Amino acid sequence: MNIQDTEITLVNNQKYHTFAFNGQVPAPLIYADEGDDITVVVNNLTAMNHTIHWHGLFQKNNWKMDGVPGVTQEAIKPGESFTYHFKAEPAGTLWYHCHVNTNEHVDLRGMWGPLIIRPKHPTALEKTVTKDFILMLSEWDSKWADKPGSGGLPTDQPDYFTINGKSYPEVQPIRIKEGDVVRIRLIGTGDKVHSIHIHGHDFLIAFKDGQPLKSPIVADTVLIGPGERYDLIFKADNPGRWMVHDHIESHTVNGNQPMGGIMTVIEYEGIPNDPWYELGDHKFVPNFYYEESLKKGPGFYNADVFHGKVIE
Amino acid sequence: MNIQDTEITLVNNQKYHTFAFNGQVPAPLIYADEGDDITVVVNNLTAMNHTIHWHGLFQKNNWKMDGVPGVTQEAIKPGESFTYHFKAEPAGTLWYHCHVNTNEHVDLRGMWGPLIIRPKHPTALEKTVTKDFILMLSEWDSKWADKPGSGGLPTDQPDYFTINGKSYPEVQPIRIKEGDVVRIRLIGTGDKVHSIHIHGHDFLIAFKDGQPLKSPIVADTVLIGPGERYDLIFKADNPGRWMVHDHIESHTVNGNQPMGGIMTVIEYEGIPNDPWYELGDHKFVPNFYYEESLKKGPGFYNADVFHGKVIE
Amino acid sequence: MNIQDTEITLVNNQKYHTFAFNGQVPAPLIYADEGDDITVVVNNLTAMNHTIHWHGLFQKNNWKMDGVPGVTQEAIKPGESFTYHFKAEPAGTLWYHCHVNTNEHVDLRGMWGPLIIRPKHPTALEKTVTKDFILMLSEWDSKWADKPGSGGLPTDQPDYFTINGKSYPEVQPIRIKEGDVVRIRLIGTGDKVHSIHIHGHDFLIAFKDGQPLKSPIVADTVLIGPGERYDLIFKADNPGRWMVHDHIESHTVNGNQPMGGIMTVIEYEGIPNDPWYELGDHKFVPNFYYEESLKKGPGFYNADVFHGKVIE
Repeated sequence: MNIQDTEITLVNNQKYHTFAFNGQVPAPLIYADEGDDITVVVNNLTAMNHTIHWHGLFQKNNWKMDGVPGVTQEAIKPGESFTYHFKAEPAGTLWYHCHVNTNEHVDLRGMWGPLIIRPKHPTALEKTVTKDFILMLSEWDSKWADKPGSGGLPTDQPDYFTINGKSYPEVQPIRIKEGDVVRIRLIGTGDKVHSIHIHGHDFLIAFKDGQPLKSPIVADTVLIGPGERYDLIFKADNPGRWMVHDHIESHTVNGNQPMGGIMTVIEYEGIPNDPWYELGDHKFVPNFYYEESLKKGPGFYNADVFHGKVIE
Repeated sequence: MNIQDTEITLVNNQKYHTFAFNGQVPAPLIYADEGDDITVVVNNLTAMNHTIHWHGLFQKNNWKMDGVPGVTQEAIKPGESFTYHFKAEPAGTLWYHCHVNTNEHVDLRGMWGPLIIRPKHPTALEKTVTKDFILMLSEWDSKWADKPGSGGLPTDQPDYFTINGKSYPEVQPIRIKEGDVVRIRLIGTGDKVHSIHIHGHDFLIAFKDGQPLKSPIVADTVLIGPGERYDLIFKADNPGRWMVHDHIESHTVNGNQPMGGIMTVIEYEGIPNDPWYELGDHKFVPNFYYEESLKKGPGFYNADVFHGKVIE
Repeated sequence: MNIQDTEITLVNNQKYHTFAFNGQVPAPLIYADEGDDITVVVNNLTAMNHTIHWHGLFQKNNWKMDGVPGVTQEAIKPGESFTYHFKAEPAGTLWYHCHVNTNEHVDLRGMWGPLIIRPKHPTALEKTVTKDFILMLSEWDSKWADKPGSGGLPTDQPDYFTINGKSYPEVQPIRIKEGDVVRIRLIGTGDKVHSIHIHGHDFLIAFKDGQPLKSPIVADTVLIGPGERYDLIFKADNPGRWMVHDHIESHTVNGNQPMGGIMTVIEYEGIPNDPWYELGDHKFVPNFYYEESLKKGPGFYNADVFHGKVIE
């Protein structure tokens, strides 16, 4: 996996200089079976130091693979490589990210991706899931967009807000059909708390940080902090078009334009278009939420849709 | 229900231009029985577009009544009307709010009110409740007070903080008596997280988003995000005067004056006044937390106490 | 206990003017048995009004000892004293803090300390604990460092972030050994939410606000708001060096320098040093997390490590 200076576009003309893994934001999906032995070779093609921390992994008897500069390893310098070996344990919704200058590299430079580990012994509930989606939530302060090596200060005031690196309306709808059992894996990858609300359905907060809740919580809104993961599961029993959005309403803007940011729409199959539907003419790009990759089973998934323009 | 340009007063001389429902902030209480069919005719008397989203309602087979502009309906234009029909389902603590330019209309223009649905099959715990209060939590940035059509940006820094549209000490105390079983329905209607602490009592976090928790949580502080609702229930077994306040202490100011904002006092019946008690001379206005309306049972409740000055 | 103008150092040369209890930030540990009768004499040696609120105590039939100025007592004026009597009830992780101008005194002037009450009937899980640590989380805005009587406004932008009053790398490591059962008592004493992540272990969120959760939650990250307490318990089964840090990455800076703030390292006994380990040459000061005092049992614990320079 290469770390590369990469320009991505959040929405409209808002570009951002990132240090993307394989030129992608989010980084490639790593999807493994519980207990798999995994090797990842990382080549640092940027001018900054980096590492990779595998957030949520136990790293049993393997702490020098935890990816923290100055604590578990020396940082990977520009032009250098490092090889991570680890066991895929525990199962669940994990993620990975750089652990050097995290306030900039994680918060503003797109250095994160999903790490999903399929359990040997799934819960009864998760066995019923028919559609599985990953949503990574982030914020961006436009004043640092073209200033790599700067930013991520406590005084920052992010003005762009994304799901999987894109803001509404340039995200994709979540397409399901009546009868589906839907799993939404939320991952807090940024610096802010988000309060995610789904219209028209109560959901079960079924997993936190990859682990099943002993006592799942029925809700229509879930507060998620940086580093946390919540897996929401609900029965698709209510055909229509339903918003999914951050109820921190200042996160539903693009710069100073309202009705953008962290919003998308659940579209049930068979609902006719309406002339006033904002995403009615939207070009649909499947797998934006990794739903097709997750269906295929374990593997390493690069994704065209998340590729930016690599800066040579 | 009319949407009207309305000037309200948060505290002292801090006025705010709102787009209030029936000239009230919070908007009228809609209190229904589970399963009721409800019709609400909305007349937009302002110069901006609006809709109403009924937050938490299932809207089963009724998605075009969900109130999202460009997704479930066209916005209601100035001078136009729209009629919402829906079934009161599920039971619990819900709310309603505009879904147009939510970063301004919900966060700064007071377009929200409570929607309480009485369950057909209440839990054993809620059957014991003797006093029922609704607290809607909001923030306001004074620089947009007289600039309708502006504000609600991610760079905003709210400097006023209210319960049901009023800041301490212009809120009302919560009056109870020993032996009461008290229910406090918290509704996060703004843009910020709040950390609500009650003195002198542990409470049960009994309901989230209107639904009973299978495993209620004992606590003295609860973190609530925008869009979330928590119903707290406790036994009134400790006569005295007890603070209820946001433990995010910068939310307990009025502008730059300390000891304001999101604070109130639980007053037990029979506690004698003290000369130094800040609310000792306070004119008591019952029903500020809808406790009298909730006692009367289902209905549509306008409230004088929340009326602002309608701007013609 | 004396309230004294005291200069402390957060990290590097960042000093801060506090109104410290006994010249210490955090304030002395009060560790009691459930049901103990406690008397605390408070002498206000500063030029400002103060009180002490005992956060989480029931204060049954004792509300005038709750420490809220203008509600339960008159503020303690400069040069005056006040005596608090109360019963140590309920058991658990509590804390105490000033309740005058809390937005400044609690958020910026270090007026808080831990109050731990040992239960008569501990849970089976807590009986297994072998190492017990207290971590109090705070933020500081450097622009008010030398301006006592000012600050704590909603527009503040804190730029220093501390555990027990110190920022990384000037905190202490958390030293444990394989086989320990570790309890981490998190206390949110400031104005911000924190998202605390522990590497290499899942933990049980076992207690909230001092009370055991009926259904403990397995997690690797916990979101904690101001005033809340979470007790995390985990088995030390994975020797190594493991980060503990706020995943709100902008809280892991010192001013504008990355990799500081709310971070520390769990060090297992027997792990050899590495030349690149940032805390490898660190002078170890035991009891920074009160682990030695907690082992000794109930008492009132002043701590040299938290002493600042008293300003005469």
